[in-house]
Amino acid sequence: MEKLKHFLTLFDRRSTLMVQADGHRYALMGERELDKGRLLYARWKAGEAQGPVVAVDASLFKAAIQRSAQVSLNGKVWVGEVGLEYREVEFAMPTIEPQVWVSRKELLASLEAVYEATSTDPTRAVFQGAQFEFSPTRLKLVASDGYVLAERTIPARGVLEGRAVIHREGLALMMKALKGVEEFEVGLGLKEGELGLKAGGLEMSFTRIEGEYPDYERVIPKPEEWQSTIEVYVPALVEALEALRPLFSRSSNQRVDVQAEEGVIHLEVDNEHGQAHRRVPCVVQGVMSFAINGQLFLERIQPVKGTGKLHFVDPKKPVLIEGGSYRGVVVPLRV
Amino acid sequence: MEKLKHFLTLFDRRSTLMVQADGHRYALMGERELDKGRLLYARWKAGEAQGPVVAVDASLFKAAIQRSAQVSLNGKVWVGEVGLEYREVEFAMPTIEPQVWVSRKELLASLEAVYEATSTDPTRAVFQGAQFEFSPTRLKLVASDGYVLAERTIPARGVLEGRAVIHREGLALMMKALKGVEEFEVGLGLKEGELGLKAGGLEMSFTRIEGEYPDYERVIPKPEEWQSTIEVYVPALVEALEALRPLFSRSSNQRVDVQAEEGVIHLEVDNEHGQAHRRVPCVVQGVMSFAINGQLFLERIQPVKGTGKLHFVDPKKPVLIEGGSYRGVVVPLRV
Repeated sequence: MEKLKHFLTLFDRRSTLMVQADGHRYALMGERELDKGRLLYARWKAGEAQGPVVAVDASLFKAAIQRSAQVSLNGKVWVGEVGLEYREVEFAMPTIEPQVWVSRKELLASLEAVYEATSTDPTRAVFQGAQFEFSPTRLKLVASDGYVLAERTIPARGVLEGRAVIHREGLALMMKALKGVEEFEVGLGLKEGELGLKAGGLEMSFTRIEGEYPDYERVIPKPEEWQSTIEVYVPALVEALEALRPLFSRSSNQRVDVQAEEGVIHLEVDNEHGQAHRRVPCVVQGVMSFAINGQLFLERIQPVKGTGKLHFVDPKKPVLIEGGSYRGVVVPLRV
Repeated sequence: MEKLKHFLTLFDRRSTLMVQADGHRYALMGERELDKGRLLYARWKAGEAQGPVVAVDASLFKAAIQRSAQVSLNGKVWVGEVGLEYREVEFAMPTIEPQVWVSRKELLASLEAVYEATSTDPTRAVFQGAQFEFSPTRLKLVASDGYVLAERTIPARGVLEGRAVIHREGLALMMKALKGVEEFEVGLGLKEGELGLKAGGLEMSFTRIEGEYPDYERVIPKPEEWQSTIEVYVPALVEALEALRPLFSRSSNQRVDVQAEEGVIHLEVDNEHGQAHRRVPCVVQGVMSFAINGQLFLERIQPVKGTGKLHFVDPKKPVLIEGGSYRGVVVPLRV
C-alpha cells in the first residue's frame, strides 16, 4: 500500500491514469507528454492484469485509493465502495529489456546532480535534456544549458554502448519513481527512440530527444589551465550561500562576489536591497576572485556532499567544481 | 524568538513591515489593507522603541531574522550582519484600551466557527465580515453569506455593549495572531470606526465595516417548526463527508443526498464523475431527507467537536445544526 501510494505521485494533472482489472488483479498505467507538442512521452506501468484498459480521473482515483486498495471494473471502476466513470483507451506499454544494471541510489544521485543544469528554454533542443552515456562498466549523465555544465559517472553492470538524451520532465518523473521503490538495483535499456527503466514491479519508458550533445569537454577547464585551487567542506559553503540567497535572489543577475585567500572564502552580496556577507574556512592554493550568479553556483556545488575542490582559471573563464565522480562548471558573471 | 517567528507570519505580500529601533530595543509594526480600495485596514504592533519608523522588505526581513534576532538602525536596518535598505514612513498605531476580556481559545474557536460563513463576494457589504456582538458578560460572533449562517457565543469579563463588523481578511489575521500568542485572556475594545485587540505584547486594530447585520434570527428555524431531529457524534459525520468530498466537489452544486431513519444517516453522491456512499450511526426522531451542498454542510457541522443535533423542517427550509454554544444554518439545494 505504501509503495502504491508513492507510485501514485507519478500521476499529476498532466498525466493520464489507466487501469486494467480482471477481478483478481489490477495494473495501473500512466502516460504523460514531456514537452508541449514535441511528441515526447513518458509511460509507466505497475502490476499485471488482463482485459480492456480504461482511463479514469487521476485525482479522484488517488483520493479513493487512500481509503481502499480494492480495485475492480464493473460498469464503473470501483475503488472500494467508490465507483468512478471511465473511458476506454488504447494503450500499449513499450517492452524494453534491461541491458545494464545500476545502483538505484547512485542513479538517483546522478539525476539530482544534473537535473538543474538542463535548460528550461524550449528552443534549446538537446539541452532541455540530460545525456545518458552508456559505456562498458559505466554510465555517465551529463547536462548543460550553456551557462553551467554538470556530469556524474557511476558503475554499471552489463554491456551497453550508446547515448540517449532524456527531457528534463522525464528526468523529474524518473527521480520521483526512484524515490518510491526500494530495489537496490535498477535496470536500464535502449531501444529505437526510447529509454526503458525497470525497478521491481515498475516499468517506465521515455521517448528520447533526437540528437546528441555536441563536444562539451572543451568547456571544462583542464588541469594545465588552473591558476588556483580551493579545497573546502562543501556543505559549509552551501549553508553560507543559502544564508545569502534571500538577498542575492532579489537582484536580476543574482550576483555574489567570491574571494578566497589565506584559508577563507569570503562571500559578499551588495545590491539595491541591502548587503550581507559570510566567511567559510578552506584550504587555498593561490588566490581567486570572481563574481558569480549565486543560484547557479549553489546548484553546481550542492551535488558534492563532502569535501570538494574549486578550480579557478581567471575571472572570465568557467569555474570547475569537483567532488567524487561529479564535476560541475559555472561561467562567472561579466562585471 | 519562537513567539516573534509566529508574529512574523502576520506579514505577507500584501502587508507592510515597519521597524522602530533605538539601539536598545526594537518594535515591529504591520499594516495591511483588508479589502481592495475600501479603506479597511488591519494594523499591529509588538515591542516598544523610540525613533523614526521605517519600512523594509518583509520577506528579506523574515529571512534575515531567522538567523539573528539582533535588530538595529544605522544607515540600513541591520538584522545581525545583514543590512537592508529602508524607506521612512508615517505610522501611528491606534490606541484602543481593552474594555472586555475573553478566553483566547474560546475567541479563536468562535472565529474558526464563523469564518467560512462570511461572504467572499465584494458586493455583499457587511456579509463580507463577521459581526461581534458585545453584551454584558457575553460576546457573540455571527456570520452569514445568505446560504449559510453561523453564530457562537462565549463568556466575556467586563462591560461593553455594541456591535462591530470585521472583514473576513481581518478575521483571518486575528486567527493567525491568536494562534501565535500564549496568553490565556485577550482584551477587546471598541472605538470610533475601529476594533482593538490586545494579547500580551501584541496590539492589533481593525477598521470596522460600516453598518450592521440585518435581523438574522428569522432565518434560524424555531423549535415549534422542527419536524425531526438527529443526534449524532459530529466528528464521525465530518469524516464521512470528507471521504465523499473528492467526488462531490467535482460537481458544480456539490450535491450530497442525506437521508436519516432508523438509527442511520445515509450520505450519497451520484454525479457525472461517479458514485459513492457512507453511513453514520445516529439517534433520529422522525425521518429526514434532503439534498445539500456537501462543502457548505461540512463547514457548518465542523465547529461541533462532539455530539450535536440536526433539526429539520422540510426539504426546502434551512437545516439547523446545534452543538454547545454554536449554531449553524444551511439552506438545502433545490432539486
